[in-house]
Amino acid sequence: MFFEGSEKKAEILIDSKQLSLLDDINDEFWSALVDCSQAKILSSISNEYCKAFLLSESSLFVWQDRILILTCGETQLVKAVEYFIQHIGAQAIKHLTYQRKNEYFANAQPSCFGDDIKLINQLMPGKAYRFGEMDSHHNYVFHLDNDFIADADDITYEFLAYQISKKASQHLTQENLTSKEIRQFLRLDSLLPNFIIDDFVFSPYGYSLNAIYQQQYLTIHVTPQMDSSYISFESNIDLLKLVPTLIDILGPKSFDLMSFNENEFEAKLTQYIPEQYISKSKVSKQLNNGYLVNFANFILPQETFLEPIELDISGENHAL
Amino acid sequence: MFFEGSEKKAEILIDSKQLSLLDDINDEFWSALVDCSQAKILSSISNEYCKAFLLSESSLFVWQDRILILTCGETQLVKAVEYFIQHIGAQAIKHLTYQRKNEYFANAQPSCFGDDIKLINQLMPGKAYRFGEMDSHHNYVFHLDNDFIADADDITYEFLAYQISKKASQHLTQENLTSKEIRQFLRLDSLLPNFIIDDFVFSPYGYSLNAIYQQQYLTIHVTPQMDSSYISFESNIDLLKLVPTLIDILGPKSFDLMSFNENEFEAKLTQYIPEQYISKSKVSKQLNNGYLVNFANFILPQETFLEPIELDISGENHAL
Repeated sequence: MFFEGSEKKAEILIDSKQLSLLDDINDEFWSALVDCSQAKILSSISNEYCKAFLLSESSLFVWQDRILILTCGETQLVKAVEYFIQHIGAQAIKHLTYQRKNEYFANAQPSCFGDDIKLINQLMPGKAYRFGEMDSHHNYVFHLDNDFIADADDITYEFLAYQISKKASQHLTQENLTSKEIRQFLRLDSLLPNFIIDDFVFSPYGYSLNAIYQQQYLTIHVTPQMDSSYISFESNIDLLKLVPTLIDILGPKSFDLMSFNENEFEAKLTQYIPEQYISKSKVSKQLNNGYLVNFANFILPQETFLEPIELDISGENHAL
Repeated sequence: MFFEGSEKKAEILIDSKQLSLLDDINDEFWSALVDCSQAKILSSISNEYCKAFLLSESSLFVWQDRILILTCGETQLVKAVEYFIQHIGAQAIKHLTYQRKNEYFANAQPSCFGDDIKLINQLMPGKAYRFGEMDSHHNYVFHLDNDFIADADDITYEFLAYQISKKASQHLTQENLTSKEIRQFLRLDSLLPNFIIDDFVFSPYGYSLNAIYQQQYLTIHVTPQMDSSYISFESNIDLLKLVPTLIDILGPKSFDLMSFNENEFEAKLTQYIPEQYISKSKVSKQLNNGYLVNFANFILPQETFLEPIELDISGENHAL
């Protein structure tokens, strides 16, 4: 069974002088916003800094002055962004970044990144970049072209694992696996002490987690099926330090790292990437909005010959 | 300017007992067949074995008992295959293989491989495989599921170069470049002595070549623009032996090799692949139709950080 795990992601900062704080906005608004992307709110957790919604396709985090929303599958996150801009008002938006990763099955998507940013750009003009290679893993980033400058300590990380090991895939696609068993497999109790956790096991498989502790957040989304496996981690916790552990658990054939405002990115790659992985792509730029954006893709070389995958051509299959 | 270089490819063998030979069929038929895919015939050459048509998007070769057609861009080769089956009659078709490579811009394609083989499979049932990784370079192969067994000496090769060097791209995107200059750059005079050559330089750039000599054929298609560059070679000449020369000319950051019925594939990789390239994917299978199919993707590791690509978001752009 095919599922497109790779996410679209938007982060929007508001000017709190122009608008009462985001955490005063009621859940009906967030529900309507999420609906626009064709996803649904499943549940939520909150602390004094943040409210985190678990979605049918990924996650929404709401802080006092910013939102972060990720949606995967065949959702149209850009429609939620449009809804937000129209309801909050462009003048109250201090900054906006919109990201989209390369997809396993781009042909099955209702829009491409070019379509998405054309829509946003008409409402609020910006600039766009591609980090990574067109014929391989890459990440598109659009940001508003205004006078906003990010705080140097606004540091976030993404770790994206592709083609996880057969062992990890088999474990994570077992029938009736509980969320507790998945948390154990991902060693989250030791990674996330003290965090409030909200997680969900999808049927027949697939897993999402939101975790918050004070101002820290982590969201994990697991598409475990062999052949289109994709496990994403997004956090303001230093994920680079966790790479050895995550690789030990997942054994991906390829993974991407992305960071915003991590000045030690290159040094940490040297420190934390296991030596059997080869660097296929490395891209870095300090954007006009102040964010230092780093992207790297690593692969495991393959020396022995594998069998091809035989495809099921009996029915509808857009996943080819 | 974006152009999707990667090709769809069909090879169809006919039962000459059931049908007068293909070389008796007139050009109007081939023109109508090519039209079905939304391409056009530009010119042709022939010898006693073969007629080779240069197309607006790639090439068509017609032998006495088989055709080979490749079309690139946003063409729908499957419509030409459907036309062929309907006009020649399924009972006269001895075997058919239909291939499709991963695209740079899958979202811009009018159909996906799943759609294509659903159409063919309704007319003539078959099997399908994916050679290579879903999140990287791969090649889909569909073939009829019948009692045909390929001749062991029916050996063909593909060499597909991605992300050619800046030097090669700049040379091949010069204004008013002549076909003679491109042949010189590709060192074709030494590679193809005695061949009849038909080639075409597209505007503003892009190049196609058909070459035949006795029963040998070679077709080359050049999409030279930086960032979506793609140069394909398809031949029954041993392209594995030519890899060092082709890499020296093109300097690709990544390339694929594919072969049908080359028993020495693995040994030749060891012999001919320059050591700076890393093997990212290797796949091999002897299909039911007798063809031993091998696929390999190689990459150059990247150690230094590059700048991202800034995207033009001013107008329509489906190439994102």
